[in-house]
Amino acid sequence: MSSLSERKARLIVHGDQPYNAEPPLGRLRDAYRTPARDFYVRSHGDLPKIDPDTWRLIVDGAVGTALDLTLHGLRTRFPAVTVTATMQCAGNRRADMRAVAPVSGDPWDGGAIGTADWTGVRLGDVLRGAGIGTDAGLHVAFESHDTVEGHPYGVSIPLAKAMAPETLLAYAMNGEALLPEHGFPVRVVVPGFAGVRSPKWLRRITVQAHPSDNPIQAGDYKLYPADVTAETADPTRGHTIEAMPLNAAICEPARGAALRAGPNAVRGYAVAGDRAVIRVDVSGDGGRRWAQAALEHAPEAPFAWTFWTAELDLPPGEHEIAVRAWDSAGQTQPARPDDTWNHKGYLCTCWHRVRVTVA
Amino acid sequence: MSSLSERKARLIVHGDQPYNAEPPLGRLRDAYRTPARDFYVRSHGDLPKIDPDTWRLIVDGAVGTALDLTLHGLRTRFPAVTVTATMQCAGNRRADMRAVAPVSGDPWDGGAIGTADWTGVRLGDVLRGAGIGTDAGLHVAFESHDTVEGHPYGVSIPLAKAMAPETLLAYAMNGEALLPEHGFPVRVVVPGFAGVRSPKWLRRITVQAHPSDNPIQAGDYKLYPADVTAETADPTRGHTIEAMPLNAAICEPARGAALRAGPNAVRGYAVAGDRAVIRVDVSGDGGRRWAQAALEHAPEAPFAWTFWTAELDLPPGEHEIAVRAWDSAGQTQPARPDDTWNHKGYLCTCWHRVRVTVA
Repeated sequence: MSSLSERKARLIVHGDQPYNAEPPLGRLRDAYRTPARDFYVRSHGDLPKIDPDTWRLIVDGAVGTALDLTLHGLRTRFPAVTVTATMQCAGNRRADMRAVAPVSGDPWDGGAIGTADWTGVRLGDVLRGAGIGTDAGLHVAFESHDTVEGHPYGVSIPLAKAMAPETLLAYAMNGEALLPEHGFPVRVVVPGFAGVRSPKWLRRITVQAHPSDNPIQAGDYKLYPADVTAETADPTRGHTIEAMPLNAAICEPARGAALRAGPNAVRGYAVAGDRAVIRVDVSGDGGRRWAQAALEHAPEAPFAWTFWTAELDLPPGEHEIAVRAWDSAGQTQPARPDDTWNHKGYLCTCWHRVRVTVA
Repeated sequence: MSSLSERKARLIVHGDQPYNAEPPLGRLRDAYRTPARDFYVRSHGDLPKIDPDTWRLIVDGAVGTALDLTLHGLRTRFPAVTVTATMQCAGNRRADMRAVAPVSGDPWDGGAIGTADWTGVRLGDVLRGAGIGTDAGLHVAFESHDTVEGHPYGVSIPLAKAMAPETLLAYAMNGEALLPEHGFPVRVVVPGFAGVRSPKWLRRITVQAHPSDNPIQAGDYKLYPADVTAETADPTRGHTIEAMPLNAAICEPARGAALRAGPNAVRGYAVAGDRAVIRVDVSGDGGRRWAQAALEHAPEAPFAWTFWTAELDLPPGEHEIAVRAWDSAGQTQPARPDDTWNHKGYLCTCWHRVRVTVA
């Protein structure tokens, strides 16, 4: 295993404390399953070092029987399951929104996203093992070992999503134990939801009647209208970001690339949450005319991204390449960064545009 | 019961043979549950007159036991269920696309949509009664009594949607027997899907390994890219329109209305298929600034539209009022009709805009 500093050197580092980094888009597009060392890292606090031999997972709250599980117990008491799923930060592509007006948060390009084979146990199996009820109004709260501004990291998800077959407590990523920065020894994986709801370094699961009151759940990761500012934002009125919207990005060519006239390959990804990507349109002239990309889906992986490839015949000059995806309900993306702008810079889903020069 | 000609006189009639009509938007917004006489009518052929005493429903194909049900048998053998759901035509709001370039089909305004309490039996219960298997690859084909260009009307839906608890064989609408133009005595209701998949005047249900090869299923109601024309369209490559996208419309004031300066109420609907509408933004200046509308959801009706109301303080002059909705995955609508234009004029989901004059 490489060292953390070796892995950091491969990534675009937005911050060191907390550690936040993403891969260059070209490398992201190299593999349908993102290697762990190239997978974006979003941290809110420290990177806890955990001894797997003493690690425990507590399951309590509105359950029939509270559980206190060792790593061995978790792995042997419940069946192992592998789900191929995309994980992404709610702030992915935030950099595009900064072109409209300032936003808070790290300026993620389109690399705060990745796809992996996640192996672990179903959260639903663990909750059933604890004798969970079926009250639809319940929430499943998570607490982790990392410390964020003096308190443990904590979020929650609705019980229905916790019981969904795709939601895992994962101990492996692409067939290997989680790397320390990805949540070793155990993280939550909530496919289709923003990465913030998939805590790393998990230590406690509590079933309760209300969402987590941890500041990360109660105060952060809210979608606000464009006219709301940091001063006027009321977290109780913002939309709690859970399911992620349709999005797409151009990974190759890179922004500002110098290309040769003639056919040029354009490659990228598209993602549609719990829906399918049915079409990806690619334009060589900023969206006046569109061609359809060839799509590469993973079979039977409804929560995984779609890779796409198009060939554009580009004449000499300056061009804006643009992409927009369509989902299985016939929805497509808005055109301009201004169309979804919000002061927190979340859910940037406008057409992704890359300017290139063709000689 | 009023006569068909009386009901026609209440609607905006796009065609008489086949009969296609929609209500004025202001009247559509008067009631959360659309009265049957004000509900849009989309016909593809004749309006068959059916004697309920001799009507039969055949259920056959890949089932354990074929069924031949009378209306009485259907109503007594399976439990009655009521679902509040919105039905809409894939061509709703097509008129807005015609502003970009010509499209085929009737120029529906935003009234090819309505919401009702649908009462009937679950299609899943009927299929289970026929000993249906659970092969995920199966399709459920419908054939009806109306004749379209010499053949019976026919479409199909995937088995998973046929077995979903919201999918009904409905014999009543808002507590009364279906009107003749709405499919008396029994129609299919597939909440969240385009109206074309909810046949009226049902006569046969066939479980089969492939989608219906009826021209309406195999050739029509496909979503094509913008560069495809009537001459180049290949139905096998178009997307079969099933789940409907996020949309919203301004019902009041009407297009071209003369208003007084000061606070003016703006009202309309929004719809998000199987997702929730989380926010509706309304603008009095064509989308430069947005205010948030108050939302009116039906409790526990996930497939029903959301009514919304906003108050805009309008100064004298000409103004463009615009609306855009957001769904529970944080997706919103594209801004311009050109962003979703296709030669068939389907799925017009751009911001709905109404120009008004304020004195």
